[in-house]
Amino acid sequence: MTSYIGKDGRESVGIVTGTIDAPEGIIDLGSRYSSLRDLLADKDGLAYARSCLGNPPATNFVEASLLPVVPKPDKIFCVGVNFASHVKETGREVPTKPMIFLRFADSQVGANQDMLCPKVSDQFDYEGELAVIIGKRGRYVPVENALDYVAGYSCYNDGSVRDWQRHSQQFSPGKNFPRTGAFGPWMVTTDEIPNVGALSLKTRLNGQEVQTATLDDLIFDVPALIAYCSSFITLEPGDVIICGTTGGVGAFHQPPLWMKEGDTVEIEISGIGVLRNGIAKEAADFAIG
Amino acid sequence: MTSYIGKDGRESVGIVTGTIDAPEGIIDLGSRYSSLRDLLADKDGLAYARSCLGNPPATNFVEASLLPVVPKPDKIFCVGVNFASHVKETGREVPTKPMIFLRFADSQVGANQDMLCPKVSDQFDYEGELAVIIGKRGRYVPVENALDYVAGYSCYNDGSVRDWQRHSQQFSPGKNFPRTGAFGPWMVTTDEIPNVGALSLKTRLNGQEVQTATLDDLIFDVPALIAYCSSFITLEPGDVIICGTTGGVGAFHQPPLWMKEGDTVEIEISGIGVLRNGIAKEAADFAIG
Repeated sequence: MTSYIGKDGRESVGIVTGTIDAPEGIIDLGSRYSSLRDLLADKDGLAYARSCLGNPPATNFVEASLLPVVPKPDKIFCVGVNFASHVKETGREVPTKPMIFLRFADSQVGANQDMLCPKVSDQFDYEGELAVIIGKRGRYVPVENALDYVAGYSCYNDGSVRDWQRHSQQFSPGKNFPRTGAFGPWMVTTDEIPNVGALSLKTRLNGQEVQTATLDDLIFDVPALIAYCSSFITLEPGDVIICGTTGGVGAFHQPPLWMKEGDTVEIEISGIGVLRNGIAKEAADFAIG
Repeated sequence: MTSYIGKDGRESVGIVTGTIDAPEGIIDLGSRYSSLRDLLADKDGLAYARSCLGNPPATNFVEASLLPVVPKPDKIFCVGVNFASHVKETGREVPTKPMIFLRFADSQVGANQDMLCPKVSDQFDYEGELAVIIGKRGRYVPVENALDYVAGYSCYNDGSVRDWQRHSQQFSPGKNFPRTGAFGPWMVTTDEIPNVGALSLKTRLNGQEVQTATLDDLIFDVPALIAYCSSFITLEPGDVIICGTTGGVGAFHQPPLWMKEGDTVEIEISGIGVLRNGIAKEAADFAIG
C-alpha cells in the first residue's frame, strides 16, 4: 500500500498491484480512507484493503505521483548508531539505550520525487534504513508483544545535512530540512515479512553500492525499539520508527561523498523493494515569507 | 487568548478578559475558528479577535478547562543551554549555534491541569521558559524581520525526565513523556510586549523560588532563534519555540530537587502571567494496548 496523489489532486491511499520488482497499478481506497493513517487507525482498515484486492487499478503505477508512505505521521522516531559498523565509523561508543531523535512530518518526500539539498549546505548525505509503520495504539508495549503493533515495513532514506546535524550535540536541525526524509515506495504488510532480521539492505548512489547490511545486525531490534519508544510516548497508528543506518555513510568516505544535484540514490530492502530518489539543489534565492 | 474546552466539550479558542493578575472570563471565538492554530493561520484572525473584544464572555475563567495554548502545534522547537547560568551548572560549553531539540504535541498539558511524572522515573524536573508562538509562515527569515513572525508569547514548563534525557546524547526521550510540557495560561499578543528582553521569569516549586532570570540574558535571543529554526524547516502559524531555561533546575540542587506527586509548580513571566500546574504520578500499572 502507499499514499499517492489521487485523480482529484488530493492525497489518497491505495494498494499497489503486481510484484515488488514490477509494480503495475494502484487500486484506490480513497472512497473510504483519506490517508493511510486513517486506514491504519480503523481496526478494520487492513481487512477492508484485502477485500479490495480484486478491484481494477485506478491508475498505472508508473504514472502515479507517490507521496511519503505515511505523508503526515503523528510522530517519526529516528534511531542513531544502531549498527555496529556505523558505530565504528562514527567513533562513538556502543549505546546502552536506543539513541532516539525526532523528525517532523514536514521534512518528508515520496519515492521517485527529488530529495532536496538545501541552499545553506553542500553536506547532504544518505542513510538507508528500514521504516517500521505502527498499526495500533500502544503505551508501555512489552517486547514480547511488540510486533503486534506493526502494520508493515518500508524503506527510508534519512537524508542528513551533516554540518547542521553537528551544530550542537542535538541532531534535529540536520535531520529536518524539507524533502530530506524519503519514504517509500510502499508499505509491505507484516504477513509478507515473517522475519525482519532476514532482510538485507543496500544503498546505491548513482548505481554504486555504498551501504550494505542485514537487519539481524541491528543493536536494538524492532521489538526493542517499539518497547522503548512506547515507554516515553503513546504510539499511534501511522507513527514511524526508522531503525538506524549502517556503515558507509558519505561523511566518512575519504574524501566525503555528498549527494549532489542530478544524482540518484536508491535504498533497496529485500522483500520490500527499491526507494529511488533524484537529488535537486534548492535555489540560492529561495525563501518564504 | 487561549485554547480551552468549549461548551460542547470540544476544543475551542477564546479571548481572556480581565487582567493577567485577575482574569475574569473567556470570550469565545469558536464559531469562527476551531483552534488557535486555525485562527493564526488566517491572516485576519487576530483582527477578528480584536473586533470581538466587547462580546460577553461565554464562561468564567476559573470554571474553564484550559488546554495548551496551542494544543496541536505542527512543530515545537526546544532550545537547550541558552542562559549562561544554566550552561554553567550543566558543565557544558557556551554554544556557538542554538542547541535545538524537538517535542511532539502529544506531550503537552494545559495550565491548571496536573503534569505527570511517569511510572518509569522519579527524576521529574521543571524548566521555566518563554514560549514564542509563530503567527506567519516563513523560511529563511532574516533576523531583522524575525519579530514580524511572532503572534505572541506565553509561559512554558519544559518538564524533563532527567534519567531518560540522559539515556543517550539525544534529549528526545526525556522531553516527550505525556503531560510533561505545560503551556499556558494564555498567549499575550506582541503589541502588549514591546520589549521581550525586559521580561523577567521566575519558577516556584511549592511557593519557593527556584529559578529567576531576565530574558535579555538569553544567549540566542528570539530573533536569532526564529532565523535559525526557519533555516532548517518552514515555520507555520501555531508553531512554538521555547527559548531555554535558566540556572536552578532541580537536577543540579544538592540533593536533587525532583517534582513529586502533590507538588505545585509555577512559571511566572512579567507581563504575561503565571502558569500553574499540580504534579501527579502515573499509576504503576498504567499501559495502553
